[in-house]
Amino acid sequence: MKTYLECLPCMMNQALRAGRIVTDDDVVIKKILDEVGDSIKDVSMHHTPAQTGAVVYKKVKEITGCEDPYKQIKADSIKEALALYPKLENYIAESDDKLLTAIRIAISGNVVDFGVNKKFSLEDDLDKIIKQDFAIFDYSEFKKQLKKANSVLYIADNAGESVFDRILIEQLGVPVTYVVREIPIINDVTYQDAIDSGIGEVAEIISSGTTAPGTIMELCTDDFIKQFENADMIISKGQGNYEGLSNVEQQVFFLLKAKCHVIAKHIGVKEDDIVLKASAIH
Amino acid sequence: MKTYLECLPCMMNQALRAGRIVTDDDVVIKKILDEVGDSIKDVSMHHTPAQTGAVVYKKVKEITGCEDPYKQIKADSIKEALALYPKLENYIAESDDKLLTAIRIAISGNVVDFGVNKKFSLEDDLDKIIKQDFAIFDYSEFKKQLKKANSVLYIADNAGESVFDRILIEQLGVPVTYVVREIPIINDVTYQDAIDSGIGEVAEIISSGTTAPGTIMELCTDDFIKQFENADMIISKGQGNYEGLSNVEQQVFFLLKAKCHVIAKHIGVKEDDIVLKASAIH
Repeated sequence: MKTYLECLPCMMNQALRAGRIVTDDDVVIKKILDEVGDSIKDVSMHHTPAQTGAVVYKKVKEITGCEDPYKQIKADSIKEALALYPKLENYIAESDDKLLTAIRIAISGNVVDFGVNKKFSLEDDLDKIIKQDFAIFDYSEFKKQLKKANSVLYIADNAGESVFDRILIEQLGVPVTYVVREIPIINDVTYQDAIDSGIGEVAEIISSGTTAPGTIMELCTDDFIKQFENADMIISKGQGNYEGLSNVEQQVFFLLKAKCHVIAKHIGVKEDDIVLKASAIH
Repeated sequence: MKTYLECLPCMMNQALRAGRIVTDDDVVIKKILDEVGDSIKDVSMHHTPAQTGAVVYKKVKEITGCEDPYKQIKADSIKEALALYPKLENYIAESDDKLLTAIRIAISGNVVDFGVNKKFSLEDDLDKIIKQDFAIFDYSEFKKQLKKANSVLYIADNAGESVFDRILIEQLGVPVTYVVREIPIINDVTYQDAIDSGIGEVAEIISSGTTAPGTIMELCTDDFIKQFENADMIISKGQGNYEGLSNVEQQVFFLLKAKCHVIAKHIGVKEDDIVLKASAIH
């Protein structure tokens, strides 16, 4: 997926939000906005929005010296999600289709996103998404591929959501490799966040190498690319990963909530829709 | 009122909206966004948002060569408002407090604003605002000053809204000078738009000299400033004029609908509130 014109004002909004998280010094935030504004002319519209967005967070780090502005927010999200874990397990225990319920839970975790301008309530959104209709529902293809797969490559998105991912991982029934970001970027899940979410107990955790808030192949390590190309089945969570992987050759199962109208339009759904989409039906 | 940090991403959103009105060539719109982004660093936070916003529309003109991007939109708004004129007259005819109903009508016209990211429906908003509670209601002061005034200086905002202004002008009962922008900027009312709205039949029309989407004293002509300083009573419509006049010494009656959360906060009301505010109670 390429960068759209709408992504450029959005960069400035992201810069303001991220700046405000690090500091309440308006002069520093103005400097962030100045430099992000200045960098608009260098944005290639052929890059993915995630690559474009990475510029914002790089500037925030450079100007404030803060390596991980969302550290506390991520810790809080994980804590909040862990507190809901018994409720998630209960949803599974009471479900007639445990795999589908686990998919819904994993998607509902995708609301924990501080890169978009959307308010969320983890528990309320969970209760809503658990019964929401899917806008795209390639569930039979998902089950067909899972039946054939000896393992799953699970590309993660946000910290906190990661706790909800554990529920789905446990229902997949095959070994899972859980893929995280290389560095802290927005509230995306890193190795330590995955450990703190309990993922280490149910999956192998690797980094894709990406430094963007999404899986951008040019930024990924050779090791990851090899695993990606040879994967039996790939699950990709969230918008940032969709942006990077929407055009790859491999079949990818995208699990997400559409939180931005540009991405929703690209997928062919409406904002706030939930999606289980196979990038290609084999 | 000064520029707030929130105004800077808003500049980019305005640039995108204005660019799209002039052209569907994404390369041209990208150039507008590049140059507006580049100009963020030159924005003085001590300027009013209207002055800051003027940069956007200047860039759009320079890059596209289009002197009046909103020309057709303004003509359409005036036409739509004129078609509602009999309904407006009917509201007055049936009202027990014709002056107050005329104020409500003039405020409801203030929804016709293409500088903000808000959808509106002129007739639906009229029917709503005609009975909406005021968030600030300095009506007794308004009546007191009007009783003493031999004339009123009426500072206008948008084209289309201008038709609704006529209703209020007719209820003021004293000679009115109607103040318009010097040049076309967004959909703000110019001399010709005022004439097309029928204002020439009920008031003298003058330009303040401002080239911003608001009355910025530094940009105004000496003639206007003299009239402003000597005015018996001043009515100011809309956000852009409020931004420029919120700190002046003279008593100004601000009639507006708060369409932006930054301005709403500055006034001390909520977004979508309607306001009849005297800048100082004498």
